Amino acid sequence: MKKFQIVGIGNAMVDILSRADDAFLEQAGIGKGIMQLIDMPRAIDLYSRIGPAKEISGGSAANTIAGIAGLGGRTAYVGKVKDDQLGMIFAHDLRAQGAVYETVFAPKTAEQETGRCIVIVTPDGERSMNTYLGVTEFLEPSDIDPAMMADAEWIYLEGYRFDGPESHAAFAKAIAACKGAGGRVSITLSDPFCVERHRDAFRRMIREDVDLLFCNRSEMLSMYQTTDFEAALAEAAAEVDIVACTDSEKGAHILAGGKRWDVPAVPTEIVDATGAGDLFAGAFLWGLTEGHDLEICGRMGNLAASEIISHIGARPEQDLKALFRSHGLI
Amino acid sequence: MKKFQIVGIGNAMVDILSRADDAFLEQAGIGKGIMQLIDMPRAIDLYSRIGPAKEISGGSAANTIAGIAGLGGRTAYVGKVKDDQLGMIFAHDLRAQGAVYETVFAPKTAEQETGRCIVIVTPDGERSMNTYLGVTEFLEPSDIDPAMMADAEWIYLEGYRFDGPESHAAFAKAIAACKGAGGRVSITLSDPFCVERHRDAFRRMIREDVDLLFCNRSEMLSMYQTTDFEAALAEAAAEVDIVACTDSEKGAHILAGGKRWDVPAVPTEIVDATGAGDLFAGAFLWGLTEGHDLEICGRMGNLAASEIISHIGARPEQDLKALFRSHGLI
Repeated sequence: MKKFQIVGIGNAMVDILSRADDAFLEQAGIGKGIMQLIDMPRAIDLYSRIGPAKEISGGSAANTIAGIAGLGGRTAYVGKVKDDQLGMIFAHDLRAQGAVYETVFAPKTAEQETGRCIVIVTPDGERSMNTYLGVTEFLEPSDIDPAMMADAEWIYLEGYRFDGPESHAAFAKAIAACKGAGGRVSITLSDPFCVERHRDAFRRMIREDVDLLFCNRSEMLSMYQTTDFEAALAEAAAEVDIVACTDSEKGAHILAGGKRWDVPAVPTEIVDATGAGDLFAGAFLWGLTEGHDLEICGRMGNLAASEIISHIGARPEQDLKALFRSHGLI
Repeated sequence: MKKFQIVGIGNAMVDILSRADDAFLEQAGIGKGIMQLIDMPRAIDLYSRIGPAKEISGGSAANTIAGIAGLGGRTAYVGKVKDDQLGMIFAHDLRAQGAVYETVFAPKTAEQETGRCIVIVTPDGERSMNTYLGVTEFLEPSDIDPAMMADAEWIYLEGYRFDGPESHAAFAKAIAACKGAGGRVSITLSDPFCVERHRDAFRRMIREDVDLLFCNRSEMLSMYQTTDFEAALAEAAAEVDIVACTDSEKGAHILAGGKRWDVPAVPTEIVDATGAGDLFAGAFLWGLTEGHDLEICGRMGNLAASEIISHIGARPEQDLKALFRSHGLI
């Protein structure tokens, strides 16, 4: 048995969550519902304009891994923080959730601080993300421990992590070590604009290395540069073993081995959509490595996503295992 | 008209909120429902043992002032933080709420960091606080701006702030400036153990300077070293103009000018009791300076407290003014 069911690699960051209305987004020049990269001066300016906030550890893949750890899965996370207060908060919260956190500390001389994401939550529960990457941008091949990747049944790569000078090389190293030891590779496309920035690299990786693709509808359309969702799904299904595509209130579409499951969403009042996709992926991967069939994995994903969007913050607050049990999934 | 309705002075800190059960409190040696002072090694040890957490600006008087600012009151806060990430978070959240925050920054050479309070919330909603004071312990007379105190209708002094070498002198300076300009003085006793540590200083200040005393039942009993609540209330009422004593699910008892109002609590499911007393005081003081009678002030206090305990964190999330309006208080 491998030591880890899933090892995730992503942008380590703390979310700064604040509520505002759509007018504020417009005034502040924030694109709604997407992730936009910002530099430190913009982060400082934006922070001075938002209302009172809460700080909760985030990071897309880190949320996924926190969900898996919360389910009792054997899991680890690799991401880069600085030796500052936000970095300590990030590391603490993942470890406290039960994940093995491979602390990659940026050098003390690094100009950047620990990454943070200013998340504006509008009354409709939508989240608009403003990401100062900080030191997490500089995760490099030497930060990847091949032994850890070889000891993973699955690795989970965060699309956002394609930004940054050495990130593609770092992912290549992780993939080689994992696949060389018989492991499998999953990836999330993260965001339609992230797909725009890295479409070629994503396409190549999907064709050559990826066994399981996570995305949502708009990322899928951006990926295959089409407005025909069914055509994009078919194209993706031809390239990877498993496609798990979330589709907001329509739930998720799972495609594998010529079959397809359309798994309905679990209706919930949306308080904060942050982390819905992350937790879908976490629950799906956990289910898969626990030997559940793909439809059940999809139902687990939808249920975990519904838990996350029912409260502020992108880490689970309920016992997901108890939730799965109460829905007869385990 | 004075520039400020209320100026608060207190311990500036960020709350680190985590959930745990009573067994954890016992294992970790944490006294339930009270505030205990801890040093940095204990803070580090405790932090390594708690589960995932959320960081939300706190500090007892700062919560009070945030509530007053949220109500649209003219208010300011004085407290000491360091120029670190938690200090930035604290300062941001008060300013963003609309309070004038008199930034007192500790020197860059200070050994201590910004104060923090590890709050363990048990399933019954009770909070057990573990406070690393950090630089806030060292608020001193030179940090008090007499002009600001003179420009306040009321100052609000946090009992917790009696800990620390120069705190009594700092309070004396604030009181002299405020009273010298015709202002009035309110104080909260904060915690029964805080009363134990500083009973003589509290007693002297109450007799000589305080016009309005905030406390809860157990603090009142500790203050007058009795188990006879009615006797303690009577003794307090003989010493200060207004006594506002909260009494959990029994609501609040207001005594002034030989009269008494027992104001019933607003029933709510308790999610996290942190900040109930703070917001009671904030709403009460705001009502008072807006010219409402004492019974209405008490009802405002109870209503604000019920809002705070219905969610995690000690700063209001609902529009308190709208809440008061919906209950016919304004």
